[in-house]
Amino acid sequence: MTRKEIQAQIIQAVEAVKRTNPMAGSITNMVTINFVANAQLAVGGSAAMVYLPEEGEILAKAGGATYINVGTLLPIHEEALPHTAKVLHEAKKPWVLDPVAVGIGSLRTRVLKQFKAYKPSVIRANASEILALAGLWELEGGTETSRVRGVDSTDSVNAARSAAIALARWTGGAVAVSGETDLVTDGHVVAYSYGGSHLMGKITGAGCSLGGVIAVYATVASPFIAALTGTAVYNLAGARAEKKTSSPGSFQVQFLDELYQATAEDIANNPFELEIA
Amino acid sequence: MTRKEIQAQIIQAVEAVKRTNPMAGSITNMVTINFVANAQLAVGGSAAMVYLPEEGEILAKAGGATYINVGTLLPIHEEALPHTAKVLHEAKKPWVLDPVAVGIGSLRTRVLKQFKAYKPSVIRANASEILALAGLWELEGGTETSRVRGVDSTDSVNAARSAAIALARWTGGAVAVSGETDLVTDGHVVAYSYGGSHLMGKITGAGCSLGGVIAVYATVASPFIAALTGTAVYNLAGARAEKKTSSPGSFQVQFLDELYQATAEDIANNPFELEIA
Amino acid sequence: MTRKEIQAQIIQAVEAVKRTNPMAGSITNMVTINFVANAQLAVGGSAAMVYLPEEGEILAKAGGATYINVGTLLPIHEEALPHTAKVLHEAKKPWVLDPVAVGIGSLRTRVLKQFKAYKPSVIRANASEILALAGLWELEGGTETSRVRGVDSTDSVNAARSAAIALARWTGGAVAVSGETDLVTDGHVVAYSYGGSHLMGKITGAGCSLGGVIAVYATVASPFIAALTGTAVYNLAGARAEKKTSSPGSFQVQFLDELYQATAEDIANNPFELEIA
Repeated sequence: MTRKEIQAQIIQAVEAVKRTNPMAGSITNMVTINFVANAQLAVGGSAAMVYLPEEGEILAKAGGATYINVGTLLPIHEEALPHTAKVLHEAKKPWVLDPVAVGIGSLRTRVLKQFKAYKPSVIRANASEILALAGLWELEGGTETSRVRGVDSTDSVNAARSAAIALARWTGGAVAVSGETDLVTDGHVVAYSYGGSHLMGKITGAGCSLGGVIAVYATVASPFIAALTGTAVYNLAGARAEKKTSSPGSFQVQFLDELYQATAEDIANNPFELEIA
Repeated sequence: MTRKEIQAQIIQAVEAVKRTNPMAGSITNMVTINFVANAQLAVGGSAAMVYLPEEGEILAKAGGATYINVGTLLPIHEEALPHTAKVLHEAKKPWVLDPVAVGIGSLRTRVLKQFKAYKPSVIRANASEILALAGLWELEGGTETSRVRGVDSTDSVNAARSAAIALARWTGGAVAVSGETDLVTDGHVVAYSYGGSHLMGKITGAGCSLGGVIAVYATVASPFIAALTGTAVYNLAGARAEKKTSSPGSFQVQFLDELYQATAEDIANNPFELEIA
Repeated sequence: MTRKEIQAQIIQAVEAVKRTNPMAGSITNMVTINFVANAQLAVGGSAAMVYLPEEGEILAKAGGATYINVGTLLPIHEEALPHTAKVLHEAKKPWVLDPVAVGIGSLRTRVLKQFKAYKPSVIRANASEILALAGLWELEGGTETSRVRGVDSTDSVNAARSAAIALARWTGGAVAVSGETDLVTDGHVVAYSYGGSHLMGKITGAGCSLGGVIAVYATVASPFIAALTGTAVYNLAGARAEKKTSSPGSFQVQFLDELYQATAEDIANNPFELEIA
């Protein structure tokens, strides 16, 4: 794909979402669940969140794509998460994984190991999580032991480049690594997306809600385009919001406003660079 | 009741809440739990949320009214929801039901079926949910199979008119159907309440938090007046907030501000029409 | 400690947090979990929330301090809360307890009774909760039966003075009683901290998030200094936010902004008075 072709597909994805209000259901953590839903609504999607295995299955089948975030695990997740991921895989429905805090706790490890076979269409995470997940799945570029520190990254995006490419090649989908400059790859092409704001690290859920927004775009676009579109609108909205405020409370409000106001052309024109993987 | 009498009762309800800060406890979903509490506080009430059956019972007995929203079910809800509803019914305490996503999943169906006997004082839902609940309870006007799509309505408010009336006649309470124009009925009178904003559909929880606010008013007023007062203050605050902002992040902030600033007279004078059911 | 020494230590604590971005993990309620995380981030800390016993242990060992808030109990809390508190006590790691709604429900009572032995470094609560917790732990100044009403206080801060002192002497840590004027004591000195806003009672989570912020400061300061620093920055941010807005929606946004902007000197200079206990 050329740069122009990618931009045309971003425009198509954004407009299709605004026109059709597609639903992307989620099983996600309780810290940022409200922000995930509001971000999905702001870009034009529809949101629904569940916890039970049976309801995960129903949502998986009913939605155009599904978002799974392993942030705050409860006992019910032991069954709900693998079951829903299996249903998605078997139904060939796109799904987005956020492997929050991979490496912390045995349930998280068991669940994330099982996800290897269910091949998430998009994996969205910070660099440390990408390295640790590739390690857990025994792919190239992964780290043997997790260097994840709570929910924050201690590694740079470029350090996770090979791991991201290996993960994308394994799933046949795309990987989005969030950091100062974001990296999005389908295993063949690497896109670097620019923009954002340091204040996105001063509010909780910038990463989680990006995963939910990518799931919205995955209802109408390929994993790579969905991941790049979501990343681009986040970089655009972050940069614009920072021009209007310098503190996190008002930044979060302004950020949602900018997500809502961003046009398809704005998002397609947000700066990015392409490389061969 | 005449229009004037209704307005006088709305004024009494709003002023009584502002003066006495009544508590309306909730068992509600995790997506919008914070917004429910903040909306309840903004109109002058007090909020408390629980999950355990024993705590549901304590809250039911301690509060002037209780709010039950079946949004994000966990295994504990299987026992907590029917138990709390039973306690409320036996203690003749008002309670408000939001049958979110009725028809999705077997636990939700089992719980909502049991609620028929415990007669919620107010049912607050969108049109598709009202139709599906009336169907589940085998009342007139209901649909046999749920057309609920995630948490959104696919039916118009007026399509749910007979179902709403049938539900209100069954419970002996009131029903509030949320849509572009809202319908509130006690089974004998139908009130149409005007106002609101399209942006209320662009933030998550406008409906859920309305249920919580109706519960606050139900601590001091009849189910019909509580439902109409809550619906009116939502329509007023939505319309006012939209005049000050055009994007969902700042709309939600402004909406809470308008809930807080609305006077009893403002709310009673929000446009509504009456019909015989 | 003299007033000057206390102010110097507050400055050190605030600057150390801003410089080192320390993590304080939480097990906290679902109503205000997002606000807790955002407040912790706003003052310069890092947040992570969990529910499972094993993950509580990992977080307890990984974080510089931990926050435990018993607001919305689920069955998993029966094991997770005492286990995490025990780990913290044995590892001699600072932890902050918010005994929300102490006296309501048997699980809450069982858990809070067990915490007596695990001696929280800081207890942060309203006056009714402090009285009830001292009663539950059979300490001087406590009330035999809880007068807690939902999550709100029905007692004045000064009525809880002896109970607060008794609790601080028992734990060897500090106690912060939130009210119109806040009281912070280590059992030997009592500090009264001034400021705040009546609007802090019109948003949910002002108290919960203060507990999370005190945990952030407890990673770098003594329990007394952490409790006083957190209380001071809340009083400062509340008073400043109220100057810019008079309604709860925009107050909460502004409050987070003020938490972020407050300098170490601002916080140290927020008005307080000292007394011998």
